[in-house]
Amino acid sequence: MSFLFFLCYSGDPTMYENYWEKIGEKTTIVIRGWDSMSYFSDLKSICWFLEPEFAKQVVRLHKIVGNAETQGRHVVVGTGSSQLYLAALFALSPKESTQPIHVVSAAPYYSSYPSMTDYQKSGLHKWAGDANNFTEMGPYIELITSPNNPDGFVRHSCVNKTGGAMIYDLAYYWPQYTPISSPADNDLSLFTVSKSTGHAGIRIGWALVKDPEVARRMTKFVELNTIGVSKDSQIRAAKILEVVADSCEQSGSSDFEQSFFEFSYHLMEKRWQQLRETVSKSGGIFSLPQFSPAFCHFHSKVLQPHPAFAWLRCKDGIEDCESFLKGHKILTRGGRHFGASSSYVRVSMLDRDDTYKMFLKRLSSIR
Amino acid sequence: MSFLFFLCYSGDPTMYENYWEKIGEKTTIVIRGWDSMSYFSDLKSICWFLEPEFAKQVVRLHKIVGNAETQGRHVVVGTGSSQLYLAALFALSPKESTQPIHVVSAAPYYSSYPSMTDYQKSGLHKWAGDANNFTEMGPYIELITSPNNPDGFVRHSCVNKTGGAMIYDLAYYWPQYTPISSPADNDLSLFTVSKSTGHAGIRIGWALVKDPEVARRMTKFVELNTIGVSKDSQIRAAKILEVVADSCEQSGSSDFEQSFFEFSYHLMEKRWQQLRETVSKSGGIFSLPQFSPAFCHFHSKVLQPHPAFAWLRCKDGIEDCESFLKGHKILTRGGRHFGASSSYVRVSMLDRDDTYKMFLKRLSSIR
Repeated sequence: MSFLFFLCYSGDPTMYENYWEKIGEKTTIVIRGWDSMSYFSDLKSICWFLEPEFAKQVVRLHKIVGNAETQGRHVVVGTGSSQLYLAALFALSPKESTQPIHVVSAAPYYSSYPSMTDYQKSGLHKWAGDANNFTEMGPYIELITSPNNPDGFVRHSCVNKTGGAMIYDLAYYWPQYTPISSPADNDLSLFTVSKSTGHAGIRIGWALVKDPEVARRMTKFVELNTIGVSKDSQIRAAKILEVVADSCEQSGSSDFEQSFFEFSYHLMEKRWQQLRETVSKSGGIFSLPQFSPAFCHFHSKVLQPHPAFAWLRCKDGIEDCESFLKGHKILTRGGRHFGASSSYVRVSMLDRDDTYKMFLKRLSSIR
Repeated sequence: MSFLFFLCYSGDPTMYENYWEKIGEKTTIVIRGWDSMSYFSDLKSICWFLEPEFAKQVVRLHKIVGNAETQGRHVVVGTGSSQLYLAALFALSPKESTQPIHVVSAAPYYSSYPSMTDYQKSGLHKWAGDANNFTEMGPYIELITSPNNPDGFVRHSCVNKTGGAMIYDLAYYWPQYTPISSPADNDLSLFTVSKSTGHAGIRIGWALVKDPEVARRMTKFVELNTIGVSKDSQIRAAKILEVVADSCEQSGSSDFEQSFFEFSYHLMEKRWQQLRETVSKSGGIFSLPQFSPAFCHFHSKVLQPHPAFAWLRCKDGIEDCESFLKGHKILTRGGRHFGASSSYVRVSMLDRDDTYKMFLKRLSSIR
């Protein structure tokens, strides 16, 4: 198995390295031995381990991009949005109930959600599968990933019952992936630098939370789980978000003056064009989702979505698309992991150029 | 309530800031925008998110200090040792059992262990209190903190039954706190930079694990919990451990040439002398634990222990020592939190000079 495709498989957002290298030293940070030694960052914030500069840049960037309402929201920082997903489950689960609350998401859903929900065998919450088939009575938590991982479609709540709490995973609600239709105005939204700027190794995510009691419970979770979040990474993330925000405010018409989101939008557009061309030449072996263009308030024009993952389908004769592609040295994650048919696979669109080119080459050789 | 004493209360190791400032730029790190963007650090290691340079410096420092056997151990990195404690519980709990495994520790134990063990209402593990009173049959996990938080004594396993797994929390097994008698030779030991070098805000801990299957399960826990550990903080921790190790190898006789552990040993020695003096003048209102001196292989002489916390006892007439001290504007954590009598409190010995001096001043005013 080619080592390269292990990475393509996982969704590692290394595609962005080129941009940051081109930008140069603007995002360089220097941390001295005696900096940020304390556990504490801001004792006036509900989230006492939140670096104020990071919170400031989060709010600033959301205002510039227009993808989330920040007014009346508490920022809670996490070790990636994964930790904040677990924190949100903890915060939204009824404290006194004898039964775990059901957690659902419409299939296809992010393949890690079931195991993340259940790996501790928690008495607080329990994975209950596809939200489309959810018929249980009582309280529940619905998880809405929009645009969706793995298939890229814009999502809304699909369980129409009382007593539900919503967690919006908006990791991909950024202008390079999808038209920004309006600022997300939810009770609880999750974001991460991994997918927005490509800094996965930094492990920083954030939640925008309306109810201060929920923010307090999420903070308690992170306290019991990891006693806060790396300050070094928060400081680095603040700098990166600042440079992204600056690039949006200062963008011009030349290539050199492109904002981060213009650069990454064009890269995603090119990769999707190449993939659609390759798939169209496959003689019907593969198909891809079709998206509707929409007005993007950030780019100020009607644009096509270009998701971070391609939800590739093999034609009916090939029942196990993952194994089929593995036979052609392309490692992907099969549909079953996402609560869907094994005729689908998820392919990362965010890998390094060389890996992506080799993926296209191997895919185009299949006839 | 004085804000200062919130910090003294918590064990924030800000005392070390002075040393790192004095040392200067040696520990400064520079991280550029395109550095360490990937999720992955070392695909050849069981712990795929472990930065090789961090692992290298961990092993090097343990060899120099002589406080842990690293041969035949796997290093697993965590977001503080808190995350690794949870990872160890996950790894050591029987997978197929219908009943949660009992988790015990001899009182007085670290006040966060009960809530960390139970906050998820996990079906895998359950806090079962003081190891001294543990009489249940079947498998169990014993947690041994040595030197102990809160009371500073060297600890050994105290449950003498078959079917037990041990987690050694060795956060304080460093030469500034306790004589290093021999390299710890356990199946599973936990360490953290918070207490060894004072970098709490960095959130980096590590486990030394003998059984590769346990290391694999701990890695799986961190993957499901936070998809790895901040690379920025691992890189910073590697640099700090390198400078500490260098300071040990290059230490000389002058103040300027002191190793990190000589500097911090003398500081702890001074603080304990001051505290013992203050307590001895209290007219018997307070008492402190008495420790036996022992040979320290690191310092090559017989030395007194100087724990990171003082386990202060109020005389018999004062039943609630925490409330009593609160009345004198000294905020501490009462014995009940540690599974012990409320005539005890835990006081942090690691706060900044000003805070520690004010603590002594307020304590000495009580007659």
